[in-house]
Amino acid sequence: MLTNTLAVGTAVEAVVRWTLAQPGNEKVGSVNAVVGETNDGALNDIRGMHVMREHVTAAIVNAKGGAVEEGAVGAGTGTVAFGWKGGIGTSSRNVRIGVDTWTVGVLVQSNYGGKLVINGVPIWKEVLLRDPSTKGERTEASADGSCMIVVATDAPVDSRGLQRLAARAVFALARTGSTYSNGSGDFSIAFSTHPSQRVTSAAGPQQRTVLPTDSVSGLFEAVLDATEEAVDNSLLRATDVTANGRTIRALPIEPLKTVLRKYGR
Amino acid sequence: MLTNTLAVGTAVEAVVRWTLAQPGNEKVGSVNAVVGETNDGALNDIRGMHVMREHVTAAIVNAKGGAVEEGAVGAGTGTVAFGWKGGIGTSSRNVRIGVDTWTVGVLVQSNYGGKLVINGVPIWKEVLLRDPSTKGERTEASADGSCMIVVATDAPVDSRGLQRLAARAVFALARTGSTYSNGSGDFSIAFSTHPSQRVTSAAGPQQRTVLPTDSVSGLFEAVLDATEEAVDNSLLRATDVTANGRTIRALPIEPLKTVLRKYGR
Amino acid sequence: MLTNTLAVGTAVEAVVRWTLAQPGNEKVGSVNAVVGETNDGALNDIRGMHVMREHVTAAIVNAKGGAVEEGAVGAGTGTVAFGWKGGIGTSSRNVRIGVDTWTVGVLVQSNYGGKLVINGVPIWKEVLLRDPSTKGERTEASADGSCMIVVATDAPVDSRGLQRLAARAVFALARTGSTYSNGSGDFSIAFSTHPSQRVTSAAGPQQRTVLPTDSVSGLFEAVLDATEEAVDNSLLRATDVTANGRTIRALPIEPLKTVLRKYGR
Amino acid sequence: MLTNTLAVGTAVEAVVRWTLAQPGNEKVGSVNAVVGETNDGALNDIRGMHVMREHVTAAIVNAKGGAVEEGAVGAGTGTVAFGWKGGIGTSSRNVRIGVDTWTVGVLVQSNYGGKLVINGVPIWKEVLLRDPSTKGERTEASADGSCMIVVATDAPVDSRGLQRLAARAVFALARTGSTYSNGSGDFSIAFSTHPSQRVTSAAGPQQRTVLPTDSVSGLFEAVLDATEEAVDNSLLRATDVTANGRTIRALPIEPLKTVLRKYGR
Repeated sequence: MLTNTLAVGTAVEAVVRWTLAQPGNEKVGSVNAVVGETNDGALNDIRGMHVMREHVTAAIVNAKGGAVEEGAVGAGTGTVAFGWKGGIGTSSRNVRIGVDTWTVGVLVQSNYGGKLVINGVPIWKEVLLRDPSTKGERTEASADGSCMIVVATDAPVDSRGLQRLAARAVFALARTGSTYSNGSGDFSIAFSTHPSQRVTSAAGPQQRTVLPTDSVSGLFEAVLDATEEAVDNSLLRATDVTANGRTIRALPIEPLKTVLRKYGR
Repeated sequence: MLTNTLAVGTAVEAVVRWTLAQPGNEKVGSVNAVVGETNDGALNDIRGMHVMREHVTAAIVNAKGGAVEEGAVGAGTGTVAFGWKGGIGTSSRNVRIGVDTWTVGVLVQSNYGGKLVINGVPIWKEVLLRDPSTKGERTEASADGSCMIVVATDAPVDSRGLQRLAARAVFALARTGSTYSNGSGDFSIAFSTHPSQRVTSAAGPQQRTVLPTDSVSGLFEAVLDATEEAVDNSLLRATDVTANGRTIRALPIEPLKTVLRKYGR
Repeated sequence: MLTNTLAVGTAVEAVVRWTLAQPGNEKVGSVNAVVGETNDGALNDIRGMHVMREHVTAAIVNAKGGAVEEGAVGAGTGTVAFGWKGGIGTSSRNVRIGVDTWTVGVLVQSNYGGKLVINGVPIWKEVLLRDPSTKGERTEASADGSCMIVVATDAPVDSRGLQRLAARAVFALARTGSTYSNGSGDFSIAFSTHPSQRVTSAAGPQQRTVLPTDSVSGLFEAVLDATEEAVDNSLLRATDVTANGRTIRALPIEPLKTVLRKYGR
Repeated sequence: MLTNTLAVGTAVEAVVRWTLAQPGNEKVGSVNAVVGETNDGALNDIRGMHVMREHVTAAIVNAKGGAVEEGAVGAGTGTVAFGWKGGIGTSSRNVRIGVDTWTVGVLVQSNYGGKLVINGVPIWKEVLLRDPSTKGERTEASADGSCMIVVATDAPVDSRGLQRLAARAVFALARTGSTYSNGSGDFSIAFSTHPSQRVTSAAGPQQRTVLPTDSVSGLFEAVLDATEEAVDNSLLRATDVTANGRTIRALPIEPLKTVLRKYGR
């Protein structure tokens, strides 16, 4: 579950209650809920504690496959990145390793800062993106804040390999201009959906399919690329949001195109 | 805050709400609640989710200095250790370092297992502590479960030193017979109350008092000794508890004395 | 390779040279030698840098299966533990998990201190082991120094599981009276000899046999027990060593027996 | 000391011997040498083990202040980065925090790969930098290999802060196009030259000057910027090197300028 900093407790409790209530879980007495957060206090009345258990439960119940909503949605509704409206972004890559093709997917909740770079272009330097029309409404880009990152793969990567994937997702933030400031609590979690990586309570040795260490480099590169693009998408899919007496603007697409062209893209 | 596994979310939310409501915190928009847990499902209707926010708030409001309640109290009400009734235990040591005397205090929430050892004596081997009067009611000692440990000191130990103190608290469980089984999530947190170790938001260099690494060995030994004794106290102060259709017995003191004498104590 | 603190460089170089020279390694251009150390300066002229490459090579060439030499041998020749002569000790356990029996072996190089405890008995308190015949020659037990621990198993434990085994070897030192003092650099390394855990350079998924997490608790207990016994053996197999103008005594067996009897063993 | 992978043992031994021999160290019985390495086997006859103790000692004795030599020098003589000649690079930043100005300096030994990016420009995509004149001689860019990074500051940063500086140096490699591949052993070490951060063997509390956590963000940004520039410098100061029957070209400056201009720099 992804939410805001002060709603973590509520989200944990809701995930626990929902899990206990599922058919087949009648004997379950231990649940470790995994909840990530960033602080959206710039746009959210975060002290108001408006996230209720029923909102969390609704998020679980209504979760569905297919294209992922991006931008100012869900836990990304109130986040700010590099002074612009951030939010949820996602991206994925297919990776060919030997005869297999594996997929790596990344989802970010962008709420951090530094000096915005997109595809290598120093957006933060450009007057076009600091012009009068935006200037008055844009908050001064703060380097503080964090990025939550979730990495998923169908490749048979074990716990050690998953830790390495997660680390590379954090590394990728450097490409976007993150300065990983003191207040940042950037966090990444990775999991594999490969059946053989499922932890069971069975006793005795199990046969597992595992990608050896020499085969994971392609996945590493995929995580780096997908994380960078997911952050870009979180900005490009965002919309202006006005709240708490301020407006945080979405990165304006047309001036951005002009700037990218100036830098040969 | 210490509580049971499934009440972590509720406890986090309650600590956050209480903190936001304190005078002087009107502008606070970020709170990181620290909540530890063990699973008391053997004696507690843990699935019933009976810990409410108001219980957590009451625990904060009613907290007071002086002697710490031990045994089957608070988060230790339903815990089991080595097949006997566990709970809250505490112990402390004074440590002379140069001209100063510092104090180390340890509090445990014991809910784990292995082969119980007290003061070096293999309690787990002794028939007297497995006799018919207890046999019927005592649950089979399981090695599973965890121990939460809180280490406090007034010595000026910095974050690196505190991590080392916390590690030694976990090491100390080996003296009590812990087998640190797969299901154990033993966790230790350490803090210093020394004013110079307080993290501030002030800019620029600060003058801090810090114990150098060569002076901390005495504190390490104190943590080891106090943690062992805190576990012992959590057992010795416990009382029989009947719930969930079973009784978990407190370690019986008289047979224990007999056994200790047999081993020269 | 195990050696003294100042011989690490020499040992690394010797292992590298030996590895490069092995048939089949003609193309090998990278070798990561694993060398552990403790500081044996109390009995060794450690500043004299007497360990030569040829000694290291001889240790490799002459390594053989069967019973392991213990006591004041090899890297343990000059070590001191709890004020008594330490050295090399080893122990192992068989562990039944489901239908399989796995073995855990532990080897220690003991060179540390605290308050010696053997089988739960506080040896450090006993006058018999501080009597005039030993007093004059025994160095004051210092809590400083370290313990190197090597854990080997034939169970199919993956890298995450091996890290957990290694951690429990360090925990076990608490049972022997270690105070893990500031100067201690206790270190443990664990490896599996199970063929399926061998890291290969093959591309693509591999089938591996892995013990699931719920099956490793027996191995954890075995590591704790074997490490404690290995430390005991390092002391009990040691012999008096005189060097650097001092004699470090082996723990005297007869008084030890008397003390153990006093404590009901 | 920085050297190649197989010379680590020799370097450790040499540093130990040199340290023992310094005036005032007559009683020193423990030395922990810090040696970093990358594998320069593409250009170096690394199996020949040509680094001798006297070379290491000479490096220490001849070390001097002032401008740092860059490019194909020292441990960087045989390194390769992104298929081009890598080597030693350095860079620094001044950081104003409150009334103080602190300096952060970074030195890299670049020997890794991925897809080279300089100042945000995708060099790896450009035909000009893959033209016939270079094609024949340039080795195919491999993503493998590592980067050693040393971070120095005169700011009063404690051990926790230094770990955070070191982490950001590794993060910065993402800006240069590193894919942190499986074979990479990227490593960063940070130290402070501030007198109050010196570890002493004095007993009792010491007064230390420490930058609080809220003041370190400027240093983090400086580490990121200086590390990226140090990698650039390691490439730009490199010269063609022919050895082992191959030539690794230095990144050609004129085509690079043309490419940078194309991308608006």
